[in-house]
Amino acid sequence: MTDILPRHPDLGTEASPALLPAGLRDLLPPDAESEALGVEALMSVFASHGYERVKPPLLEFEDSLLSGSGAAVAEQTFRLMDPDTHRMMGLRPDMTPQVARIAATRLVNSPRPLRLSYTGACVQLHGGSLSSDRQVSQAGIELIGLDSPEADAEMVAVGAEALAVLGVPRVSFDLTLPPLAPALIEEAGLPLADRAPLLRALDRKDAADVTRYGGRLAQILTDLLLSAGPAARALDVLRAASLSPAARALTDRLEATVAAIEARAPGLRLTVDPIEFRGWRYHTGICVTVYSAGRHEELGRGGRYLSGGNEPACGLTLRTEALLRAAPARAARPRLLLPWQADADVARRLRAEGFATVASLSPVADDAGEARRLGCTHLLRDGAAALL
Amino acid sequence: MTDILPRHPDLGTEASPALLPAGLRDLLPPDAESEALGVEALMSVFASHGYERVKPPLLEFEDSLLSGSGAAVAEQTFRLMDPDTHRMMGLRPDMTPQVARIAATRLVNSPRPLRLSYTGACVQLHGGSLSSDRQVSQAGIELIGLDSPEADAEMVAVGAEALAVLGVPRVSFDLTLPPLAPALIEEAGLPLADRAPLLRALDRKDAADVTRYGGRLAQILTDLLLSAGPAARALDVLRAASLSPAARALTDRLEATVAAIEARAPGLRLTVDPIEFRGWRYHTGICVTVYSAGRHEELGRGGRYLSGGNEPACGLTLRTEALLRAAPARAARPRLLLPWQADADVARRLRAEGFATVASLSPVADDAGEARRLGCTHLLRDGAAALL
Repeated sequence: MTDILPRHPDLGTEASPALLPAGLRDLLPPDAESEALGVEALMSVFASHGYERVKPPLLEFEDSLLSGSGAAVAEQTFRLMDPDTHRMMGLRPDMTPQVARIAATRLVNSPRPLRLSYTGACVQLHGGSLSSDRQVSQAGIELIGLDSPEADAEMVAVGAEALAVLGVPRVSFDLTLPPLAPALIEEAGLPLADRAPLLRALDRKDAADVTRYGGRLAQILTDLLLSAGPAARALDVLRAASLSPAARALTDRLEATVAAIEARAPGLRLTVDPIEFRGWRYHTGICVTVYSAGRHEELGRGGRYLSGGNEPACGLTLRTEALLRAAPARAARPRLLLPWQADADVARRLRAEGFATVASLSPVADDAGEARRLGCTHLLRDGAAALL
Repeated sequence: MTDILPRHPDLGTEASPALLPAGLRDLLPPDAESEALGVEALMSVFASHGYERVKPPLLEFEDSLLSGSGAAVAEQTFRLMDPDTHRMMGLRPDMTPQVARIAATRLVNSPRPLRLSYTGACVQLHGGSLSSDRQVSQAGIELIGLDSPEADAEMVAVGAEALAVLGVPRVSFDLTLPPLAPALIEEAGLPLADRAPLLRALDRKDAADVTRYGGRLAQILTDLLLSAGPAARALDVLRAASLSPAARALTDRLEATVAAIEARAPGLRLTVDPIEFRGWRYHTGICVTVYSAGRHEELGRGGRYLSGGNEPACGLTLRTEALLRAAPARAARPRLLLPWQADADVARRLRAEGFATVASLSPVADDAGEARRLGCTHLLRDGAAALL
């Protein structure tokens, strides 16, 4: 199951502005099949760990789609009026809130922890800063009803196994603690006028401005900023830092989660960026971003949040188009021309052997020429596959 | 690959009006996985016959989505404004016009015949007469650039093979000739006032009203109406009928297509309803509806149409939710509880053997009770899978 996805370097930049709106694109052969096979390989790994698949609809009433964890993505949501009820519906920008809704309603009586998986297309009003894509396909898992380092670790371990099956090279999981910086700032009682420039400075990772606006947090925030990197080193810095009890509880949990991940997925490349907080929306605890080393594009992200009824939950959502770009190329199915009125049993046998058989639908003078014209690699000749 | 899809009789009637708009639904375990595995089984059959997968976006500018063959579904299309360009976009109600667009633009230089496959969700403004579903998942094939009985036959034969792989029982393909009745009426020069009631009578298959409004076509239309049934008998009636050259050309083509289907898919259950014309939209020649005998629901439909630039094309589109309801149940993956800190290598081996392993994320007193609580069929005990 390795080598599912082809490398296709221009996939992200190819566009036909005259034909399609910005950020919406056609996947053509062979990319569309590669993406689909890659998604099914991911979903199969998720299923093998007991994650059961759900398929919510593309559209929902906006009050259910955008309630709870969905509120964070409201401004990225296309709205439509339901002509039957005249209520507003939203085109989903993210599937996690839908899965949380299912867990809190139709599966509310299913035993916990509830393990669910999902895949499908989402649409956002605008492209992001890293990619112009407005339609993004997701494949993910959610673990609902448990708040523990072991639950966080299962997300990372199952995600890492899925990426290994696709053959994505040098995967790294970057752990962050989005509530930490806001908690420190809140507790320190910094002047309100300094908070916005300080958050911007942290966002830009600008140590000089962190010092300027950080007040009595200047030293600790600078230490945390500089601690970002391999997990062991970052945890050393956190351990040495002088933190309030609330902040210490957050970093203790991070340390326990790192230990649980190392037990469940030994050797996985783990980094920690304790002060990073931007881009996290409905998350309430440890978060994770997935990269393939040397590539800027995020392959996915996840973290801890509250599902319906404030039930603890964590999840990991992979971006399937990004995986398609990061994974190695896959050998194409050999393509074989069947001459006009070729033997049906022979053709069936060749398909079972893995050939795509392309039937000639009328006699042609030169079967080999026809096979080349149609992009075939093989021709049926004397009852057997002949390489062209 | 048989027995992919479970029977789930209440799938079509289950709904949560308080949660979701009418015609939109959640697929839950185990249906969502069954549907997905069934779709990939279909797509694999299509690929094995040389159909290459494309994936158009969910949204397009309405002038491309609804041009050409798409115009027929304009009134079923949700519209949205693109906030960037202020141009109107449509949420696709059907994928065939998108595939036709791709064939006529980005793949215009690909060799013909062009064989493309696709799958994805479509959304319609209103449910149909047979089903309230507004989100319908499609999986289909299009054969572009060829107008011949053999091309028509390939759609039917490949579709029949795909349905056989899913184990759908007693599949029948019902061939229709939507241009025939309008051509006869136009040629006969019937009074304009009689045409609408005559078309309605044909639509209702009301022989008495066909006689009343049919004028000099009364006899031939009644004969054609009564000819509907097994292909051989219907073709006998058509052969004996006195038809204009234009109508005769249509029925000759139907006869050649039936012969081509019987050569390509011997033993397939074929019926012909030559006078049926309702429900066909952009189709210009022979059309086909797929049923599983004893069920009213259509499993799919297809036919001949003109792709971009009036290129001849034919296709077949299957409805994947309907297939899920028609196909036999699939054996579920056995589910095995791993006790807390179970051996990782043993767990990996069990997953490779086909188990879904559910990890205990903390110690529990009674592993067997926990396994039952979580819906597991097996428990890891003494390094092996023990049936509960």
